[in-house]
Amino acid sequence: MRIGIIGGGSIGLLFAYYLSERFNVTIYTKTVVQAEEINQNGLFLVRSSKVHKTNVTSQCFDQWSGKEDLTFIAVKQYQLPDMIKQINIQQTQSTNFVFLQNGMGHLKLLKQLSAKTIYLSSVEHGAYKKYQNTVEHNGVGQARIALYQGELSLPTSIFSISHFPIVMEQDYYEMLLKKLVVNAIINPLTALLHVTNGEIIQNKHYFMVATNLFNEVVGILNIENSESYFNQVLEVCYNTSANRSSMLKDIEANRPTEIDAIVGYIIEEAEKKKMNAPICQMLYHFIKGSER
Amino acid sequence: MRIGIIGGGSIGLLFAYYLSERFNVTIYTKTVVQAEEINQNGLFLVRSSKVHKTNVTSQCFDQWSGKEDLTFIAVKQYQLPDMIKQINIQQTQSTNFVFLQNGMGHLKLLKQLSAKTIYLSSVEHGAYKKYQNTVEHNGVGQARIALYQGELSLPTSIFSISHFPIVMEQDYYEMLLKKLVVNAIINPLTALLHVTNGEIIQNKHYFMVATNLFNEVVGILNIENSESYFNQVLEVCYNTSANRSSMLKDIEANRPTEIDAIVGYIIEEAEKKKMNAPICQMLYHFIKGSER
Repeated sequence: MRIGIIGGGSIGLLFAYYLSERFNVTIYTKTVVQAEEINQNGLFLVRSSKVHKTNVTSQCFDQWSGKEDLTFIAVKQYQLPDMIKQINIQQTQSTNFVFLQNGMGHLKLLKQLSAKTIYLSSVEHGAYKKYQNTVEHNGVGQARIALYQGELSLPTSIFSISHFPIVMEQDYYEMLLKKLVVNAIINPLTALLHVTNGEIIQNKHYFMVATNLFNEVVGILNIENSESYFNQVLEVCYNTSANRSSMLKDIEANRPTEIDAIVGYIIEEAEKKKMNAPICQMLYHFIKGSER
Repeated sequence: MRIGIIGGGSIGLLFAYYLSERFNVTIYTKTVVQAEEINQNGLFLVRSSKVHKTNVTSQCFDQWSGKEDLTFIAVKQYQLPDMIKQINIQQTQSTNFVFLQNGMGHLKLLKQLSAKTIYLSSVEHGAYKKYQNTVEHNGVGQARIALYQGELSLPTSIFSISHFPIVMEQDYYEMLLKKLVVNAIINPLTALLHVTNGEIIQNKHYFMVATNLFNEVVGILNIENSESYFNQVLEVCYNTSANRSSMLKDIEANRPTEIDAIVGYIIEEAEKKKMNAPICQMLYHFIKGSER
């Protein structure tokens, strides 16, 4: 089976590395430089200070035509609108898609895509793109996958890759919602305060803000079993306590963040329901104002 | 006339320097080291890159007895409760007091002080304590003074010191309220975001937060002519746009901040009136959590 991966960021490289153990992988990058680097020197993954190498094919995204059986979309949420237009233009063959984005902002974009089968995924790995062809796998977690439209047809061998567990979920909405709530608490607070994930629960004042924010978020999203959601936030903070969130890394690297897909989505939901979202509003503007 | 100044921080040194042009000034410091430094080498003020020197007497605060005619209290608001107890113990002679603190948290402490005449002051200077005996006067503003209790008895010569205007105000409450509102907007936002005062109005997202915060604050403080208060915030941001606020400097230097006296006071007012203060609450905990 052939797999295509669109996007050469940390998550794209991570998926390319592990999936190449079982499948024929082509990674589609934004720049020619990155594609050449991967083709000439290979793709490297660093885990627990050990370096692993694999060989994958890489091409610039303008060469993509959908000829692989399964295509993972590993671009940032804010790149998706343009990306989906381009996919519709370039696609000449029928492929199935897996979307790896955070948040829920991308759901409304999926109907623009001409595709039979679409999966959504919630990625719980810690990964850092060290070089153009090297990714550090700092936090071995898992990737949850749920069917969004079409028929389930994933090869069984995808579920048994060492250090890269993939778990099927029944309900894509609940799966993304859980990740959204976790991201909505951890990402903006760590990015604003320039602290690690653990600090959010270890510092009693930050924890107070996190709790108030959580209550606002579950109120807006109409989540009933909020206790299990709260426990999940605590668990992630605890299990990744030394990690710097993706939004913090984006702010520090002067990249745009995913604040629109995460907190922006929640604010939109509040507006639809004519609810107030003072804490989300404030965090949204803090992060937007900090973006370069 | 003899003047005593309690506190050898930036504002204490600033007042000591300028008042020494007209009066016999003694500055009471926390440490013996600072008192000796001032006594042996003099007190320096830097303004527009020019260095000025004066000679004042300095003693450790435990030598204070209230023998001067007028005593300026230039310690931080959070040092006041202990300071007032100590003043009551050490005072053997009758002196009048001028309090220079930010915020309004100190008002409730003043009734504990045994004093005939008390003035309150709102200081609008930019000053930075470069060394133990050197203060930089970065922003020449003014000091407003209003009578809090007792009888007006300030010497006229205090009102004509070059680069150090002192202005009498009729209403101490309104005077402090104006400063409080300005501080409540500029201080926590600049300290949290690590930006200069001007950034608060130049960055459209930060300005949005500042506006929401302002509306919450004037609602809680029951301020009617809110437009003039808002204009004052804009003016201060504009006139001191390159400055780093005192709270930002405190955070950067790992010192405690005056958040209790400023935002804490507003939250207390909200609680008294059974009003919500979500934005103030959040900023309060952000700053408290960032204090070392």
